[in-house]
Amino acid sequence: MDKINIGLIGAGFMAKAHSIAYAGMPMFFWPAPAIPVKKKIVDVNEQAAREGALKFGFESYSTDWQDIINDPSIQVVDICTPNNVHAEIAIAAAKAHKHILCEKPLAMTAAEAKAMYLAAKENSIHTMVAFNYRRTPAVQLAKKYIDEGAIGKILDFRGTYLQDWSADPDSPLSWRFQKDICGSGALGDIGTHVVDMLRFLVGEFDAVHARTATYIQNRPVQTGLADSLGNSRGGAEAPRRAVDVDDQCCFMVECKNGAFGTIEATRNAWGRNNYITFEIHGTEGSLYFNYERRDELQVCFSGDGDDRRGFRTVYTGPAHPYGEGLWPIPALGIGYTETKIIESYDFFKSIAENTESSPSFRDGYAVELISEAILKSAKTRDWVKVGEIQED
Amino acid sequence: MDKINIGLIGAGFMAKAHSIAYAGMPMFFWPAPAIPVKKKIVDVNEQAAREGALKFGFESYSTDWQDIINDPSIQVVDICTPNNVHAEIAIAAAKAHKHILCEKPLAMTAAEAKAMYLAAKENSIHTMVAFNYRRTPAVQLAKKYIDEGAIGKILDFRGTYLQDWSADPDSPLSWRFQKDICGSGALGDIGTHVVDMLRFLVGEFDAVHARTATYIQNRPVQTGLADSLGNSRGGAEAPRRAVDVDDQCCFMVECKNGAFGTIEATRNAWGRNNYITFEIHGTEGSLYFNYERRDELQVCFSGDGDDRRGFRTVYTGPAHPYGEGLWPIPALGIGYTETKIIESYDFFKSIAENTESSPSFRDGYAVELISEAILKSAKTRDWVKVGEIQED
Amino acid sequence: MDKINIGLIGAGFMAKAHSIAYAGMPMFFWPAPAIPVKKKIVDVNEQAAREGALKFGFESYSTDWQDIINDPSIQVVDICTPNNVHAEIAIAAAKAHKHILCEKPLAMTAAEAKAMYLAAKENSIHTMVAFNYRRTPAVQLAKKYIDEGAIGKILDFRGTYLQDWSADPDSPLSWRFQKDICGSGALGDIGTHVVDMLRFLVGEFDAVHARTATYIQNRPVQTGLADSLGNSRGGAEAPRRAVDVDDQCCFMVECKNGAFGTIEATRNAWGRNNYITFEIHGTEGSLYFNYERRDELQVCFSGDGDDRRGFRTVYTGPAHPYGEGLWPIPALGIGYTETKIIESYDFFKSIAENTESSPSFRDGYAVELISEAILKSAKTRDWVKVGEIQED
Amino acid sequence: MDKINIGLIGAGFMAKAHSIAYAGMPMFFWPAPAIPVKKKIVDVNEQAAREGALKFGFESYSTDWQDIINDPSIQVVDICTPNNVHAEIAIAAAKAHKHILCEKPLAMTAAEAKAMYLAAKENSIHTMVAFNYRRTPAVQLAKKYIDEGAIGKILDFRGTYLQDWSADPDSPLSWRFQKDICGSGALGDIGTHVVDMLRFLVGEFDAVHARTATYIQNRPVQTGLADSLGNSRGGAEAPRRAVDVDDQCCFMVECKNGAFGTIEATRNAWGRNNYITFEIHGTEGSLYFNYERRDELQVCFSGDGDDRRGFRTVYTGPAHPYGEGLWPIPALGIGYTETKIIESYDFFKSIAENTESSPSFRDGYAVELISEAILKSAKTRDWVKVGEIQED
Repeated sequence: MDKINIGLIGAGFMAKAHSIAYAGMPMFFWPAPAIPVKKKIVDVNEQAAREGALKFGFESYSTDWQDIINDPSIQVVDICTPNNVHAEIAIAAAKAHKHILCEKPLAMTAAEAKAMYLAAKENSIHTMVAFNYRRTPAVQLAKKYIDEGAIGKILDFRGTYLQDWSADPDSPLSWRFQKDICGSGALGDIGTHVVDMLRFLVGEFDAVHARTATYIQNRPVQTGLADSLGNSRGGAEAPRRAVDVDDQCCFMVECKNGAFGTIEATRNAWGRNNYITFEIHGTEGSLYFNYERRDELQVCFSGDGDDRRGFRTVYTGPAHPYGEGLWPIPALGIGYTETKIIESYDFFKSIAENTESSPSFRDGYAVELISEAILKSAKTRDWVKVGEIQED
Repeated sequence: MDKINIGLIGAGFMAKAHSIAYAGMPMFFWPAPAIPVKKKIVDVNEQAAREGALKFGFESYSTDWQDIINDPSIQVVDICTPNNVHAEIAIAAAKAHKHILCEKPLAMTAAEAKAMYLAAKENSIHTMVAFNYRRTPAVQLAKKYIDEGAIGKILDFRGTYLQDWSADPDSPLSWRFQKDICGSGALGDIGTHVVDMLRFLVGEFDAVHARTATYIQNRPVQTGLADSLGNSRGGAEAPRRAVDVDDQCCFMVECKNGAFGTIEATRNAWGRNNYITFEIHGTEGSLYFNYERRDELQVCFSGDGDDRRGFRTVYTGPAHPYGEGLWPIPALGIGYTETKIIESYDFFKSIAENTESSPSFRDGYAVELISEAILKSAKTRDWVKVGEIQED
Repeated sequence: MDKINIGLIGAGFMAKAHSIAYAGMPMFFWPAPAIPVKKKIVDVNEQAAREGALKFGFESYSTDWQDIINDPSIQVVDICTPNNVHAEIAIAAAKAHKHILCEKPLAMTAAEAKAMYLAAKENSIHTMVAFNYRRTPAVQLAKKYIDEGAIGKILDFRGTYLQDWSADPDSPLSWRFQKDICGSGALGDIGTHVVDMLRFLVGEFDAVHARTATYIQNRPVQTGLADSLGNSRGGAEAPRRAVDVDDQCCFMVECKNGAFGTIEATRNAWGRNNYITFEIHGTEGSLYFNYERRDELQVCFSGDGDDRRGFRTVYTGPAHPYGEGLWPIPALGIGYTETKIIESYDFFKSIAENTESSPSFRDGYAVELISEAILKSAKTRDWVKVGEIQED
Repeated sequence: MDKINIGLIGAGFMAKAHSIAYAGMPMFFWPAPAIPVKKKIVDVNEQAAREGALKFGFESYSTDWQDIINDPSIQVVDICTPNNVHAEIAIAAAKAHKHILCEKPLAMTAAEAKAMYLAAKENSIHTMVAFNYRRTPAVQLAKKYIDEGAIGKILDFRGTYLQDWSADPDSPLSWRFQKDICGSGALGDIGTHVVDMLRFLVGEFDAVHARTATYIQNRPVQTGLADSLGNSRGGAEAPRRAVDVDDQCCFMVECKNGAFGTIEATRNAWGRNNYITFEIHGTEGSLYFNYERRDELQVCFSGDGDDRRGFRTVYTGPAHPYGEGLWPIPALGIGYTETKIIESYDFFKSIAENTESSPSFRDGYAVELISEAILKSAKTRDWVKVGEIQED
């Protein structure tokens, strides 16, 4: 079994999630496609980098991401930084012929994403965008049912990603609210997860009609050290600055295969925490998923007898996707860690077997094209065609 | 206590619902605003009329609705017919100075609705449109919370009405699928309930952006006698004819007060039966309701402590709207009957106290203006302003 | 269609429930087994009787229940009084050859119930005990699945009836807390509903092992007029008197067919309103029901494929028991009214067709024998055999 | 930060769970109480041991657990074997002055557990029994509410642990169905988790009244290699042998503080996967938890206003127990891994800070005394007092 050396950039919340995935992946999926070795961690903040090495189990650390690019022993670059430096790092990594796992959203703009995709393509590297929620076994089970034709032809769908961690107007102006660092707000941060999930399940998006809003128009500037989400609690008395990205977005989608849907993402939904849901109606059945109860998929089959038809609540386990590697009984518990372990497994498998990974940079680019169309539609108040992927 | 004589037109499913409401209203709400007396029932089908009188407890029956208009003892006309004859009957009743309870949607078009509204206004009668779902105590509790400011300023909302009783392509082409009888399909039949509910809760709609579809484009012609929904099962072997109305519609809404929302109505959602839901996000809380579990309202208050905040599942009972008249313990059970009893109570109360009823024909007209805008937007694929109510 | 004249005794909450059932039954189930005619209502309180006649639609009223017994035109006696007068009235009615619908629990003791049963038997009348919850269509669907063998042989079960309307120690000492009027507390008032339901679904109880408690040992004496539950709010400052019945009881059950179960009833479960639930495990499936969400039955079939097995949430409607008479679409709404309408239908049907009704006085007697065993076991802290029904 | 060397015995499902916990603990809780070092893994099957070392990241492996006892560099022994060898290994480890983490149930009998407890006590080591479910943040939140008095004095409770992975009579006779290896069946394997949880939340058990059953009385002998649960699918055609332990048990509990409850554990509940639930009623509120939806705790406070009281669904996150170490947003996802990481954290913290761990071997012994009383009661059909812990 090959060992693969990893360099990880950014020592926050995502570094933790990826680090435990590297540790856990071979424990869960054996024989593992590779044994990940945590070689080097980088953070611009030296203390964060040093501490990150210690707690996440990296052999060394640095404050300069170029040290990872320039380390010939490193085969995989893992980008867990804010969005504004994804492109620069990824293109450098691609040119250095390193495989890349990049946090979502892939880029600040579709143009950036295109450049990243083409760099990866030219250098024949394997890439993955960390849309981990689609890897929840219940979501994969939905995909399996759809592929089997168990719910027939898809008619329409509804997706949501609702949160409330920043619904308080006095929660701080972290980088996630500053356009020059994040590119977009609720759309990029959470909306793209649902876009990825439904594009995966339903098919390519053709056109969108969108509306965005910024309900909380200014927030207190951060003071002190940020927590792992990039927050620090400046509190109500700190000076306030304008938010220049959306904190809510909602859009209609027309898919190339004729399916229609709506997607809604907001950070102002009190009581919703990580409320990633979809409902899909097909000619022969329906699917419903809510990540807050992620061990479950609900499915209704039209073919069930009239006196016993209804949504079935299926708890995923050994009989379902990835079941061989996860826990031996349904509902032992799929957590965030497990979604990241699956992501890691799939990524290393695509490297080991030299197969197409998914979602690759190409998919991340496709999502950026959709985001671009959404932002444009929100301005023009009109339907906007999603741009085509350009292969060169 | 005054007795009020009623003439009811149409002896199907709705006649049953209204008849039990008339019987039950004084039992539930005492002192009752009036004692309804079931004077005469009319159906074009004589057998249905005769049987209707017997089972629903009317003193007499007829096959001609003019007999009701011409009966001076009748003070209230109750219109439970298909949509295409609402206007003619209602206008005649108004001219005869009878109060009117009319099934929803009010009319085939906004123009018809306007004529009905103006006829009622000119003749100073009391009117009500039978959007009974908004009368569910849990919906009224939502209204109470909103009016108290308990969830702050409303930001956005999402409403649905999903069904599957006609998701089978071999279910029959009843009048609900024929434009000349019903006016519109899923929009008028079910979508308007949600429009009424959210207009009631959130405020006036300003503009809409819609999409409609007809997924099942033809259905078997009915043979034999219809059931109470107007269906008769011709089955797969019967000849098929085109459906000329929508069976799915979805639209974005901008309200005059700045709130934004989406509403979705479909008859093709396998596993959803009478899935009328709304979720409303305010600056200080959220509300969620699902009619399939109608004894409950879910509410989250932002002011609850960080360590104990979450949606509360409130079962409505004596401490909630209409609680004094309903059952003495929450969750004894609100059914369809109870929603209709409340409707009847409010209608007779507005007559007895000579107050504005709600939803009146004016509201029904407002809903028709919204429907008109939706259908127009579905064609133009553009935002459409909702027309203004014309007072003469 | 025959008319059947009814005399109803007791003008409180149950009078309302039964009165709307009599009005609604022919509207729902047609052709109806009979047309109930509300002849006379009786209450010891004259105002309640007079008002009851008016609002519930009875032709006349009285303060003396003997007036009903002595009225030869009355064919059915409906007993809605507190428990302590059930026996006297019922035995008199039986001797007068009137059919009887009696509220639950049937009697104060098994001895009383036996006398009532034998009086009914000797006079060949039809009887019914108003355990209406078992008539919920979802409960009847559970019965259908069991009878079809769809969940195999029943292994074990768990039933609950949890409430909180008297969990406040300052809620008043109504008759439901006084042994000489009610016989027993939570056991008789609510526990017997679950006993009836599970005896109906699972089979005869053979032995029980019980524990009872009185958590709130005294309550404020009532002052002023009682509400429909028999409550009046004396409040915290009123003088307090001892409660001499259980407000919680819990017991193990061994059935004659080998099934085992537990049942729990309490009035001290904050947040539970009318939480009547059961879960039944069989060799080939499971059932779960919660009356608070009474339109639904959950069922799991072991035979479903490993990758798609899970509880199905079936909303009852036209394809399920009593569906022909209820509403034409599932989840339009089963409320308390609908359960009472079904009860009325079954009762009049048994009279019209001269068939055995269920639950009859014989069943009510069986439940009293179980209650007796429970109260005995709670004292002896030992298993107690349920007494046998004595046929003379 | 100290490194602590670990020797782990048994390379199955639990080895995986513990190994990822050791890797993840410092990533989640920082500064960590210690950095666990995976020194040696032992399994009687050499291939399992060798492979275990590789995939779980141990430095070395062995087939003889004495190698761990005899290795002076190893400070912690982690026992993940079947139950029948817990005692021998633990006593040896204690004598070698190594701290011990032992899988549950602690022992085959109370006598064994006592010997283990005394050995640990005499040698002043830190011990923990791996009742990980009580470490779910939502369970800890329940404990916090109880300790704060938020639900008042506890009246009664109900606990369940329902599964169906062996409800099929053709599922194999693994060691979990053989008394000489497991000691007891559903009781020890799953029932003890609920006993631990409710003893933790409610208080010491005083007496029990139990019933046990073995519904599936024989099962196919295993053939071939076992999976991580110790199963191998012999299938229906394999020879069958008797099951000599319970697969269902149910008992009443009286606590020393007066609280009463019931607990039910079964392996024959089709549709229930890992259905660990409790409901607790107090004088001022109620709690409900279901591990299948483990991110949530439901709590009802009696003090909430009459018009807004109901169960709150609280999703645990940063504002709740262990929130500082887990994920930064509620509902990102607590899985089995996270419960084990918390367990590891608490264990190493008790070592580092030299504080009492919980549940320690003393608690494990207490649970064995309860199990002993349960098994005795199931035979005598009588209440049985729980034995007292003997301190020497």
